[in-house]
Amino acid sequence: MARIVMKFGGTSMAGMERIRNVAARVKHVVDQGNEVAVVVSAMAGETDRLVGFCKEASPLYDPAEYDVVVASGEQVTSGLLAMTLKAMGVNARSWLGWQMPIRTVETHAKARVESIDTGALVAAMQSGQVAVIPGFQGMMDDGRVSTLGRGGSDTSAVAVAAAVKADRCDIYTDVDGVYTTDPRIVARARKLDMVTYEEMLELASVGSKVLQTRSVALAMKEKVRVQVLSSFDDPTQDELPGTLIVGEEEIEDSSMERQLITGIAVDKNEAKVIVTRVPDKPGAVASIFSPLAEASINVDMIIQNDSKDNAETDVTFTVPRADLARSVDILEGRKGEIGFNRLITDAEVSKVSVVGVGMRSHAGVAAMMFKALADRGINIEAISTSEIKVSVLIDEDETELAVRVLHTAYGLDADVAA
Amino acid sequence: MARIVMKFGGTSMAGMERIRNVAARVKHVVDQGNEVAVVVSAMAGETDRLVGFCKEASPLYDPAEYDVVVASGEQVTSGLLAMTLKAMGVNARSWLGWQMPIRTVETHAKARVESIDTGALVAAMQSGQVAVIPGFQGMMDDGRVSTLGRGGSDTSAVAVAAAVKADRCDIYTDVDGVYTTDPRIVARARKLDMVTYEEMLELASVGSKVLQTRSVALAMKEKVRVQVLSSFDDPTQDELPGTLIVGEEEIEDSSMERQLITGIAVDKNEAKVIVTRVPDKPGAVASIFSPLAEASINVDMIIQNDSKDNAETDVTFTVPRADLARSVDILEGRKGEIGFNRLITDAEVSKVSVVGVGMRSHAGVAAMMFKALADRGINIEAISTSEIKVSVLIDEDETELAVRVLHTAYGLDADVAA
Repeated sequence: MARIVMKFGGTSMAGMERIRNVAARVKHVVDQGNEVAVVVSAMAGETDRLVGFCKEASPLYDPAEYDVVVASGEQVTSGLLAMTLKAMGVNARSWLGWQMPIRTVETHAKARVESIDTGALVAAMQSGQVAVIPGFQGMMDDGRVSTLGRGGSDTSAVAVAAAVKADRCDIYTDVDGVYTTDPRIVARARKLDMVTYEEMLELASVGSKVLQTRSVALAMKEKVRVQVLSSFDDPTQDELPGTLIVGEEEIEDSSMERQLITGIAVDKNEAKVIVTRVPDKPGAVASIFSPLAEASINVDMIIQNDSKDNAETDVTFTVPRADLARSVDILEGRKGEIGFNRLITDAEVSKVSVVGVGMRSHAGVAAMMFKALADRGINIEAISTSEIKVSVLIDEDETELAVRVLHTAYGLDADVAA
Repeated sequence: MARIVMKFGGTSMAGMERIRNVAARVKHVVDQGNEVAVVVSAMAGETDRLVGFCKEASPLYDPAEYDVVVASGEQVTSGLLAMTLKAMGVNARSWLGWQMPIRTVETHAKARVESIDTGALVAAMQSGQVAVIPGFQGMMDDGRVSTLGRGGSDTSAVAVAAAVKADRCDIYTDVDGVYTTDPRIVARARKLDMVTYEEMLELASVGSKVLQTRSVALAMKEKVRVQVLSSFDDPTQDELPGTLIVGEEEIEDSSMERQLITGIAVDKNEAKVIVTRVPDKPGAVASIFSPLAEASINVDMIIQNDSKDNAETDVTFTVPRADLARSVDILEGRKGEIGFNRLITDAEVSKVSVVGVGMRSHAGVAAMMFKALADRGINIEAISTSEIKVSVLIDEDETELAVRVLHTAYGLDADVAA
């Protein structure tokens, strides 16, 4: 017997036929003797429809009323799943965000979970009743409806799992786990049995779309064991194991042999900006990045070339592609103040990252990456690193080649079946 | 300065363009210095869509979860109207059923309003903030969502008006008031300036679809002055006066000349059943109607023919058309017990009713009706009366003719413009 939080996304909730499948999966887990809470997203497309109404109402819509409107999508699916479970003979009820309540703070439309009152919820679960909880929504201190920002249902699920002290939080998705890299790029990509929070966090932040970054960060903070698994298996059979996301110590305890690198992620949402011939003097670089920071533009990789004559230097950095035009506007508006010559931009770049806690104890991971890419003539335009990640910026056209080269170089390729 | 509750139905809320029109009308009423609460329905078609999901989930859906699902339609429109008002510079906020709360009792899916906590609501209205309230929804004592049954938004509006002691409850509809009869049948039908609660109640119960019967009964009980008016007038201009529904004393105080009859209503939802050759002995009639009552079938007009030979009699009555087949099944199943010969049914009948408080003090209203119909050869198949109503059952084909004949006979025809 375990206490399990199950989470189903919008694709799994899109229409009654799929909701019946979800209910059958929940019933199977309940029948195994587990205490279950289910967190659900709105039907696929529904949140977009509701956000569309809000934008039509006013481009500067009131965020508190936006929350009232968009939270309704999850209210609908939670009610429908609860009644489907009851029709299948499974004791169940819906718990709306304000009914527990899930208390949130900060700002409407992107609230943060502060606490969850679980007294009544846990009592109901212990009595054998499945708790069906709409993801994405909560309640502010003033009693008004809030939402956690797009994709917030993963975060809701992890927050509920932490609050009810669940043994596991199972996130059902359209993939059957976390892979060493995107299987559409590398046919020999392998599904990982386990990955650490830190690795998943880095993978999520550099392009892996399996889980929302915020939900992983919360799972790490609250030590919630998360499993990513497929929602498309036969719901009346035991599910196939997915990928467990857990603390490093749990992986060390297991007898698994760890690879140097756990996974390779790709992010095509960056763009490169080169600011040429910036005066090489104190404050020059700050004069570039301060106005971007004020405009909430998230600058990632930064390279300052060696000054050839100690008078001028080129500064290269990346920004989200969606912010490229705005970044250029801001810098051109301060051309005199910064004193640069011109801006060169390139949106056709991609960031390829290798991630793994193994690199903490092994030197040479970055060097292996640079050499593997150089051997295939792939030019590295920028580099950034963290404790467990090395990212390189390359020409977008060479993305798939680079990923395949690195996947082989780090020994990640699966054995091909005979 | 007055305190006014405005109510808009699903047609008025169907899409952002119409919601903007509603917001403009609300702004106009606010700009005149009034304190305003607005009660809204879901977008036209939305409640049907949500009910469809529930029926698909299970024919015997759980009513508590049904309420969670269908209440979301009004949640969406209340948020959208509030944000549209704010975008127009009108201070506004939505108040969901559980936020005031609107406390309801009895049963899910057809709850009854018990009380409304108006402290915070009235304070907000007094501060100049428009309260936007989703109709149809409330909260049970156990903190769960409830709904008032289909068409419940009129009732919500009247309940809110009573709770906040509004000077008037304005119900915006797709007609511009209550008419002496259906203008599609009688071109010379007149819009009524005023009608009493009792008259409106009788008109609503016999086919007038302007207002829900429950909402009129509540208005009468709580003495809420209700106005029915058109939602399609130019929202930036003062609205054209509609029909006021008020107490009899208020009409007597006005200098208006009252007609003998206020209005004529048609109900085509009845069907006639004749049970032939029932033994004319004590208990025979009870053996017909008891099983129908047990099956919650609402029997309306009942006629027992004179027994010709003191041994057998024919019993005629009407039931809702939707219950005709079930009624026949029930009676055929007890044929031996009741002892009748056979059942004759006729679904092609219609009930025409004349309504007016004037008939309390005037004899001969019914006689005038029977004579006017007889003069045109219209056969009366059954009759029922109340203190302020006379209803006759006639052949459905003669409905329009009968209404026109009666409209002229009671002097209701409008003067034709020269």
